[in-house]
Amino acid sequence: MQQFDVFTLFPEMLQPYLSVSILQRAIENGLLQVDLHNIRDWAVDKHHVTDDAPYAGGGGMVMKPEPIFAAVESVLGTPPGCPVILLTPQGRPFNQRVAAELSKYEHLALICGRYEGVDERVREHLVNDEISIGDFVVTGGELPALILIDALTRLIPGALGDPDAWQDDSHASGLLEYPHYTRPAEFRGWKVPDILLSGNHAEISHWRRQQALLRTWQRRREMLEKVELSKEDKQFLESLQDEQNL
Amino acid sequence: MQQFDVFTLFPEMLQPYLSVSILQRAIENGLLQVDLHNIRDWAVDKHHVTDDAPYAGGGGMVMKPEPIFAAVESVLGTPPGCPVILLTPQGRPFNQRVAAELSKYEHLALICGRYEGVDERVREHLVNDEISIGDFVVTGGELPALILIDALTRLIPGALGDPDAWQDDSHASGLLEYPHYTRPAEFRGWKVPDILLSGNHAEISHWRRQQALLRTWQRRREMLEKVELSKEDKQFLESLQDEQNL
Repeated sequence: MQQFDVFTLFPEMLQPYLSVSILQRAIENGLLQVDLHNIRDWAVDKHHVTDDAPYAGGGGMVMKPEPIFAAVESVLGTPPGCPVILLTPQGRPFNQRVAAELSKYEHLALICGRYEGVDERVREHLVNDEISIGDFVVTGGELPALILIDALTRLIPGALGDPDAWQDDSHASGLLEYPHYTRPAEFRGWKVPDILLSGNHAEISHWRRQQALLRTWQRRREMLEKVELSKEDKQFLESLQDEQNL
Repeated sequence: MQQFDVFTLFPEMLQPYLSVSILQRAIENGLLQVDLHNIRDWAVDKHHVTDDAPYAGGGGMVMKPEPIFAAVESVLGTPPGCPVILLTPQGRPFNQRVAAELSKYEHLALICGRYEGVDERVREHLVNDEISIGDFVVTGGELPALILIDALTRLIPGALGDPDAWQDDSHASGLLEYPHYTRPAEFRGWKVPDILLSGNHAEISHWRRQQALLRTWQRRREMLEKVELSKEDKQFLESLQDEQNL
């Protein structure tokens, strides 16, 4: 059972994604619990203001500290009883290794920043960890929070139909995935590779490994430095290099 | 005006995100158009099957080629009249530079993969570009598609309230952002830095630049190699290095 408390100004953005497919099933099966909290409910003034202009100007609005502290502490205690993560482009980059690390916590709180950012005192005094989904700018932490929840849910034992399904995923093995084909065997004259119809499991397994190596070598060569390679893998990669050098 | 045609099995996942905040406003203001198409509507058999087991096994299901080709070609013509992008962990990594590159196209088609992946013939014969949001595994291309749409919308002139707002964003400048503060000036004894209350705009600007450099140096040192630095910036970074070496 993995539990998330998500603090956001837009719970209605997140709810639909939790109501379909793998996340829905994980929730129904008691493997996942996601509670959405609207930070605005903890803004005490009569207009429920959650943002204000930044000190010294600079454009945009900044999320005020009081409603965020009040929301997180009223749900999770003072200090909060679980790690509190801020989704922000300034955080440490998220990847499959970070997902595995975070999946060890049974309970996580996620704060979705919005507008120009959150008041620095939230970072300094409430948050334990800051995560960035990538080196690009989106409007808020809501999509990054869903990405994190989705990636971690896939690591919960039993959340995927096939318990070994995640192991072949791109980035889980450290390589990009080999090509997939399904029926029809021929579509517009484009055929499925013969090897996949051969029934020879050893050769198919060998082909798939080489295809995964080939694709990673073609597209993301830097990933090969971090993956464990067999002697045969290395020979295959050397042969690719030799071909290129011809 | 930027136009997206999104092909997905779960349009209901994407719609709510388009109905709030900056994306909603961009749509209302005629700056953005997003049309969602359910690939299932182009599955011609009576059960509207869109996936099937992979050839040679391997767990999971693979999206069939016919409904995807039919959906994209019936909406966009044969061949499609705009670039067709597949969201996949095997694609080239998305970042703010790729966002700027893609924002030059007025019209883009996005295909959201699901399950174990899409039939390889879709990649080979329909898709022009493959984009990965990061080195992690999520259940489908829907969140990545929304990330891409959000990031590109922020680059449409007029889509943000403040036309210069995006320039200070983390990753737009090549540096992580400086800290933001808003009222109250003191919260639980934690004060806003005096400099921000000083009214001295030159000094504030100088402090912010140094804070952005400091944060990037502390958290993402590799980013500094790609950013244009003034002589003063370099001196400041050298002073940080000197302090660390003490």
